[in-house]
Amino acid sequence: MWETFVDHENVESIMHDKGLAKVGDGLVNFCYSLAKSLVLGYATGEKVRDSVLARAIRSTSVYTHMNRRTDAGRAGDAYEAIMAYLWMTEKISISNMVDSLSKSLNIDRTTSRKKEGMIAALAFQKFLENNIEHLP
Amino acid sequence: MWETFVDHENVESIMHDKGLAKVGDGLVNFCYSLAKSLVLGYATGEKVRDSVLARAIRSTSVYTHMNRRTDAGRAGDAYEAIMAYLWMTEKISISNMVDSLSKSLNIDRTTSRKKEGMIAALAFQKFLENNIEHLP
Repeated sequence: MWETFVDHENVESIMHDKGLAKVGDGLVNFCYSLAKSLVLGYATGEKVRDSVLARAIRSTSVYTHMNRRTDAGRAGDAYEAIMAYLWMTEKISISNMVDSLSKSLNIDRTTSRKKEGMIAALAFQKFLENNIEHLP
Repeated sequence: MWETFVDHENVESIMHDKGLAKVGDGLVNFCYSLAKSLVLGYATGEKVRDSVLARAIRSTSVYTHMNRRTDAGRAGDAYEAIMAYLWMTEKISISNMVDSLSKSLNIDRTTSRKKEGMIAALAFQKFLENNIEHLP
């Protein structure tokens, strides 16, 4: 169904695909809402900030494929594009993304926004690391 | 897995559940991105405006459960909360939502933002109408 959208030969071209980043933005936000809801025990959610995803991707080996001076917006987009790629190629599912994120998301109702961002970045980093093998 | 989040006895209480609306916001945006990508033939996406979802829900019988003076923000939230409820209770899946939306989304690259909003509202309306039977 999504073959034409994921016709990429290498990870660099995935990371620079602005269309995939737009789809991935929705995927990442939805999965984070679900994971956070599970952890806190009530339905909730919000947009995951670029800075959080940028921190996540910069801590992985994938980032060697990007220019070191890439700003947080583009680094975040690269993370989102990779997630869209993995989902569209059926390497990851919403349920395993939610599962993985929620296991690393050690937050509670009192966690500050700043601290939550740091913990979330680590959760997104782990998830990507566990799926790097699926990238071209 | 999501039982505690969907413990509602009637549609009014679903429509006023702000937590479900947050989860549903992610779901609706993700599915719309996918449907729009399918229709246009390239990956894309954006946030669905409250006004679009408000127009969709106001055209259905569900809206009789809301105050007629409800503003677009709250009407949009009600739509999103219903979608989260239907997904969490496994009455709808991402693939049937994308399927249904894309079938009604008669847009192309030249469609104006305003016209796309009207067409999208109709697509969201149809999808809800086809699933009203699953609501308590």
